Formats: sequence, C-alpha cells, structure tokens
Amino acid sequence: MIQKQIKAAIRDIPDFPKPGIIFKDITPILKDAALCENIVNAFIEELGDTRIDAVAGVESRGFLFGLTLATKLGVPFIPVRKAGKLPHTVKQKVYELEYGTATIELHTDAFKPGAHILIHDDLLATGGTVMATSELIKDMGGVIAGFSFVVGLGFLKGREKISPICDKVIILANY
Amino acid sequence: MIQKQIKAAIRDIPDFPKPGIIFKDITPILKDAALCENIVNAFIEELGDTRIDAVAGVESRGFLFGLTLATKLGVPFIPVRKAGKLPHTVKQKVYELEYGTATIELHTDAFKPGAHILIHDDLLATGGTVMATSELIKDMGGVIAGFSFVVGLGFLKGREKISPICDKVIILANY
Repeated sequence: MIQKQIKAAIRDIPDFPKPGIIFKDITPILKDAALCENIVNAFIEELGDTRIDAVAGVESRGFLFGLTLATKLGVPFIPVRKAGKLPHTVKQKVYELEYGTATIELHTDAFKPGAHILIHDDLLATGGTVMATSELIKDMGGVIAGFSFVVGLGFLKGREKISPICDKVIILANY
Repeated sequence: MIQKQIKAAIRDIPDFPKPGIIFKDITPILKDAALCENIVNAFIEELGDTRIDAVAGVESRGFLFGLTLATKLGVPFIPVRKAGKLPHTVKQKVYELEYGTATIELHTDAFKPGAHILIHDDLLATGGTVMATSELIKDMGGVIAGFSFVVGLGFLKGREKISPICDKVIILANY
C-alpha cells in the first residue's frame, strides 16, 4: 500500500547526476503531506518494539523524515554531516566512493555508549554512506538498532552490504 | 517560555566557522524530542490563521523542522537547494555573500503561481539566503506568506532586511 503510494509519487530523472543514471526524485513525495505522514507511521509500524534510543539522519535528505520520525518516536535526532559542518568536537570516518573519498562526521557527544541507534536516509543505493555511518557509530560505542529508507535501489545491493551489521532494514519502496 | 527552552539548549561555539564568530549550535535542541515538538507547535501558534499553501525549507538545516512543520500543517514541503542538487528543471537565483556568490535553486513545478509560501530556516543571520529565496519565489509567481526561524541573531539585522517583503517574521529565540 505505502509502496504503491511512494512509487506513484516518485519521478524518474534520466541521466542525473550523470549519463546512464536514472535518478529517483523524491520531491513529489514532499508535496503530499498525507503521504509524508503515512511514511513516518509506516516506519514506526515496521520498527514495532525495536529499541530505539536515537535516530541518526544523513545530510541532507535524511534530515527530512529523520527529524519527524525522531520527534514522533520521542527520541533524540542525531545529524550525520559532511566534513566541516558540525561545530563542536567531532569524530569522523573517511570512506571510498566510486572516484575518490568522502568524509562524514558526528559530534562526539551525539549519544552515550550503548545507545541503540536507528540510521535513516531517504534512499538506499550502494550503501556506502550508511555503512560508514554504522562504522562510525559502532566506533563511538553505539549499537545499530536498524536502518530505515523511503526508497531502495535493490539492484545496487545496498541491503546485502548493510544487513550483516543489523538485519532490521526497513525499505518502504523497493526497485 | 519556548525562547527560554531554546536558549537553554543552544550551545555557543566560539570561532566557528572562523575566528571572531560565535556559532549558535542547535544540535542540542535536536536531542530533545519534546522541545522539537514544542518548536513546531509554537510556529503553528504564531502563524495563527495566516494562509500557508506550502513551506519552503532551506538546505540543509531548514529541512529539519521544515518538513515536520509542513506535515503538521498538512501542506507541501518545498526543498530550497544549493546549485546542482535538484534533479528536475530548476529556476535559480545567484546572490552575494561576504566574499563571492552563492546560488539557490527551486524546481519550476515546486508550486503553482499565487501560492502562499512560508519560508523556513533554522537560523536568521544576515538574511541573505532567505532574501534570495523570497526573490526566487516571487519571480516564480509565489506570494511570501511569512518567515519562520528557530533562532535569530538580532545584531545582524536580518529581520530589518526581510520584513519589507512580508512582516510576518517568526523568530522563536532572539539574540
């Protein structure tokens, strides 16, 4: 049901950001407030009684549903940001991209050791950023409680990459 | 009341992002789900019966409360993004920074002409980005319904810059 609604809203953009890629544009979802609410409720339903002490959202689009979800769950929201954006003391993780590397950062006081963290982003592609986020959270003493995505690109095998870390992988609409 | 709660949560970071600047770190607010909910409710209360057809949130931190606010108001959320991030046809606005320029973009189909748009960001400083956003929205036929910020830096005179466009400027905690 929710998968059908999400897929009906998503717009395919050929050759973005580069030739050969078909980009899944989620902005039409954001135009539909009822669907946005349904998405957050679907995450909460799928989480069931999973212990969640905080939601970590990946910049920028993971900030969208991430904060709404954390607020509704009544738990802290942790921003996962690109290098140089978080102002306080940070711990960082450098990870490989197709060409070159990227760096993500978390505030060192983002959560207490032993906290169960749900990692959220809008879309799961190859899982590189989410994998790096998981490793950083584990390095800081956190427990990965699960992953939540609005959309997954199954053919890029992101689920296979991250599920060994935690098999609670919620993907509302899979391609 | 809400101002006191927000100010108690905010953390001052001296010399970030550069020497002489005292950065207002809002990440401790995000750790407090009840405060996050209060912030969104305070915006809604301040808006009263103002007509709002959509909320435009400025990347990245305007995505946080922006989507939650739009969902709760039951209206579309419009992402205002840096150049090159929005995948569909865009209209852009180049604006001056202290050194150099920046560019923001909106999807051309983000809203219908005549729509009343609330512009949201986490923090109002000099108002440059928000001013550019207003101009872009007006160029595209939108009506500026108001502005909402969690924090305002009064000494930077952002309110004075934007209030001629629309005098509905909501700042929950002012410095």
